[in-house]
Amino acid sequence: MSDTLKRLAVIIESRKPANGGDPDKSYVARLFSKGDDAILKKIGEEATETVMAAKDVRAGGDKSKVLYECADLWFHSMIMLAQFDLTPQDVLDELSRREGISGIEEKANRKLIERERNGD
Amino acid sequence: MSDTLKRLAVIIESRKPANGGDPDKSYVARLFSKGDDAILKKIGEEATETVMAAKDVRAGGDKSKVLYECADLWFHSMIMLAQFDLTPQDVLDELSRREGISGIEEKANRKLIERERNGD
Amino acid sequence: MSDTLKRLAVIIESRKPANGGDPDKSYVARLFSKGDDAILKKIGEEATETVMAAKDVRAGGDKSKVLYECADLWFHSMIMLAQFDLTPQDVLDELSRREGISGIEEKANRKLIERERNGD
Amino acid sequence: MSDTLKRLAVIIESRKPANGGDPDKSYVARLFSKGDDAILKKIGEEATETVMAAKDVRAGGDKSKVLYECADLWFHSMIMLAQFDLTPQDVLDELSRREGISGIEEKANRKLIERERNGD
Repeated sequence: MSDTLKRLAVIIESRKPANGGDPDKSYVARLFSKGDDAILKKIGEEATETVMAAKDVRAGGDKSKVLYECADLWFHSMIMLAQFDLTPQDVLDELSRREGISGIEEKANRKLIERERNGD
Repeated sequence: MSDTLKRLAVIIESRKPANGGDPDKSYVARLFSKGDDAILKKIGEEATETVMAAKDVRAGGDKSKVLYECADLWFHSMIMLAQFDLTPQDVLDELSRREGISGIEEKANRKLIERERNGD
Repeated sequence: MSDTLKRLAVIIESRKPANGGDPDKSYVARLFSKGDDAILKKIGEEATETVMAAKDVRAGGDKSKVLYECADLWFHSMIMLAQFDLTPQDVLDELSRREGISGIEEKANRKLIERERNGD
Repeated sequence: MSDTLKRLAVIIESRKPANGGDPDKSYVARLFSKGDDAILKKIGEEATETVMAAKDVRAGGDKSKVLYECADLWFHSMIMLAQFDLTPQDVLDELSRREGISGIEEKANRKLIERERNGD
């Protein structure tokens, strides 16, 4: 796994209340102390902010804003993963398991075919 | 960068129409050929599906579903990054730049303080 | 309630499989037959499309697109309400109960104050 | 239009800074003073909260929570409409224009057929 993701995952894990994370000092510990819905709500928020930043680029906005919001989205995804005792490595393994992109595209195409069959 | 992310980024890049990606054969090429909104819409969709999968876990659902949806969210984030000529390495650099998690928490706390000041 | 909302609610209700709705002929019946997640996924999708249409307006896009996407968002909200045996009248009552907007703003402000107290 | 929606729309309009809305006293005035992105972000947030509340119902949660979140979603949609000088009546007209639900279903089916043709 990337060193950055690994380092982040370790620190996020250390912010869990059970591991001594202090909600008064740490943003991540505070999210953990609030629980599932507070964390999941951030996924929805950061996804919306990412979409808005991307739209702004086409209207002359700064591309680094997309990067910034995407980093926020991935960061909060990692907090969610930790909340369910999952790791970014698990996500990478899942991506890898679909093997290269051909596997993912196959899967996406299967979903598509199924969706078309269901008339969705 | 993680080998998986790097490999995926290379393959995604190769799916751009300008690089010979064929919308009739490749799911990713088809998204690229549709443009920004089709890609951004997927960010919103996959975020919602991730949230639903996480809620299901607490109702007895399978944790691997969260992993699966999170992989989809990251995968489509990478297509979006490529659409704006950005890479997952850029995102990792941004995460790293905020230095460990303390920088991110500092930023999150700054945003928080600002939000509180604005009464939002 | 508005005649439009009332009429829509009646027709949506009639599309439930239990009321004879036919998934092969009706889009709404098909959503009902797929169940909660298919309906909820549409809430996330239509919200994202509304946000994108609004961003487009500021880049010279057509304002009627916002109207169109907002209508889609409300329409799918009504399907969700029906799925939980709720009606748009219930939503209007809730909005009314908060009394004019002052009640809503009071509530929003209470939420805000609480959020600030929690440091969120 | 429903009296509730009409009354709300009038009050929301009065909260615009240009109409004397005071960001220090009114939640809506504060959103207007922050501009597009603050308002659009709320659409994404409230949609996510609606989805979570609906998932909770199936796990034994209170149905009134869905109502509550849906009211929040519609309320913030109305602020967005006002931000673009649109009204809930415009949305109702659009819903009505599609004539009963058959028009909407026709449109949804056309979109579907087009989506299938595009292999999306």
